[in-house]
Amino acid sequence: MRVRGAPLIGVTAAYGICLALRRDASDEALAAARETLLATRPTAVNLRWALDRMRETLAPVPESSRLEAAYARAAALCDEDAATCRAIGEHGLPLFERAFEQRAERPGGGEVLNVLTHCNAGWLATVDWGTALAPVYLAHDRGLPVHVWVDETRPRNQGASLTAWELREHGVPHTVIADNAGGQLMQQGRVDLCITGSDRTTAHGDVCNKIGTYLKALAAWDSRIPFYVALPISTVDWTLKDGVREIPIEERDAREVSRITGRSDEGAMVEVSILPDGTAVANPAFDVTPARLVTRLVTERGVCEASAEGLRGLVPARRDSESQDPHLRHTEPRHSESRDPE
Amino acid sequence: MRVRGAPLIGVTAAYGICLALRRDASDEALAAARETLLATRPTAVNLRWALDRMRETLAPVPESSRLEAAYARAAALCDEDAATCRAIGEHGLPLFERAFEQRAERPGGGEVLNVLTHCNAGWLATVDWGTALAPVYLAHDRGLPVHVWVDETRPRNQGASLTAWELREHGVPHTVIADNAGGQLMQQGRVDLCITGSDRTTAHGDVCNKIGTYLKALAAWDSRIPFYVALPISTVDWTLKDGVREIPIEERDAREVSRITGRSDEGAMVEVSILPDGTAVANPAFDVTPARLVTRLVTERGVCEASAEGLRGLVPARRDSESQDPHLRHTEPRHSESRDPE
Repeated sequence: MRVRGAPLIGVTAAYGICLALRRDASDEALAAARETLLATRPTAVNLRWALDRMRETLAPVPESSRLEAAYARAAALCDEDAATCRAIGEHGLPLFERAFEQRAERPGGGEVLNVLTHCNAGWLATVDWGTALAPVYLAHDRGLPVHVWVDETRPRNQGASLTAWELREHGVPHTVIADNAGGQLMQQGRVDLCITGSDRTTAHGDVCNKIGTYLKALAAWDSRIPFYVALPISTVDWTLKDGVREIPIEERDAREVSRITGRSDEGAMVEVSILPDGTAVANPAFDVTPARLVTRLVTERGVCEASAEGLRGLVPARRDSESQDPHLRHTEPRHSESRDPE
Repeated sequence: MRVRGAPLIGVTAAYGICLALRRDASDEALAAARETLLATRPTAVNLRWALDRMRETLAPVPESSRLEAAYARAAALCDEDAATCRAIGEHGLPLFERAFEQRAERPGGGEVLNVLTHCNAGWLATVDWGTALAPVYLAHDRGLPVHVWVDETRPRNQGASLTAWELREHGVPHTVIADNAGGQLMQQGRVDLCITGSDRTTAHGDVCNKIGTYLKALAAWDSRIPFYVALPISTVDWTLKDGVREIPIEERDAREVSRITGRSDEGAMVEVSILPDGTAVANPAFDVTPARLVTRLVTERGVCEASAEGLRGLVPARRDSESQDPHLRHTEPRHSESRDPE
């Protein structure tokens, strides 16, 4: 958890391969490093994607020049990630502009474009720009008056601590709210659109993202507010269809819920306990927003419907690959342990 | 905010009248005390209800014996509240028993009845028993294996601090979760029913309750899980129809979101800041769950549909009072200021 954000996890893993190769550049060491890194974050599918790119590049390279090739490929992944995020911003911007034009028709529609986001999918989660926040930054830079409702994002408070800080650094007006508040703001017409990132997207457009994303998508649906998900195509797991049934959800440490760190009035960082001692805690880290609740996916290749057809329209190579792709044999639920009864 | 919970607020206000009458038992003092107390909590409609009961009792009583009459009436309100909550529990119990029988048909249905609740609607919020928790306690006492998912309930953490403590005192198994987690648990079949309290219920069955209740009702609806709301009839505001449009939502202090109090490892209570300094905060305290998302209302008079017909079936005196009741002139939105643009 030192590194977070699906794109940044992928790029960091690529440099992890470089570090491993400094010690030992053999095929065995390369394979072992890949396995170790893969196991670190089960949800982030572009961790696997980045490691696969590294393997493709390095496998045919002789050991003696592998390290140099690894650093070059990792740097290229960095550049690609920044370009990808920038492209996501460019493709998302027209959606923001349209929502800004339409906001006047909403009850409560204000002078600014009110965007709600959950968790942190900005430049702290990527090499630059971010995914969900890329169109926010572009809109702001181009003079669209944008204001962001920032979900606190319990239990790790990525919204309150990271997104709020990041938006302030960029000068984008924003307001932090408890995760509970978004539905009420949407009911009252105080949100024009929602946009989040994705840690893993199924081939049918279901979105696995930070816990609580699903609740906001439901509220947006109920108030007829667009709910966009911004993602690099590398977060698509083409082997998965039904995200709710097939994606295993990481259960994290109870202390994320039972304890919280903040600044005391003296300026010290203090960790305090906020539950009665010994209270049982459950802490699922992600949830799945079914494609039917997602208005559009915003990718570096353009905007599409959250559906198998939509995604294949953006990635034509996937159009007729279903029968050949060995991953696609595994479309049955593979992780039934995550759906066990109490 | 020293006293919370709609029923307890009403009873406490009744004793507030007693205290005022100790100083001055005149008609003027009675009226002034009533106005002061009414202004303390705009959402809790049974604050007004309790004060109206006090006024009815005390108005015809001569000043010399008013104080005694006030204490007697306040004590009677206490007894009535406990009896009301107990009756809510008795009426809710069969719903729990039915859900326990049906849980085996759910994917993931476990050995216990999994109940999700939001905020605190237990005996800490009432004179005894609670509203939403009354059937939980009765079910537990009668041997139904019940387990409660306790929403943390940011920003004031009434679930994490009050409900968790209260359930532990009673010996009811429970697990605290971040408010974000409930939707995911419902998707995975790990919740058999939801039950919450209500601060204010419209004559058409819309429920104004702690911020975030609406999001859980949406998730329950999406996963076809019963969403019950437990309430004394005194929380029904017969003057209101459309809760989303008509109920003004209290905006509370930003410090509820930006700061949090917990126990340090040394056992001291410490308040820490969890937002970047100067971050803007919005803090709506309640939201409205439309009647269409509420499976049933559970009251001391029985269980009914969340609708005008349902409520009037339980309270026949209201059946033909619409034309006479002076309050019912005010069915237009009266609080447009709460829906202003940013």
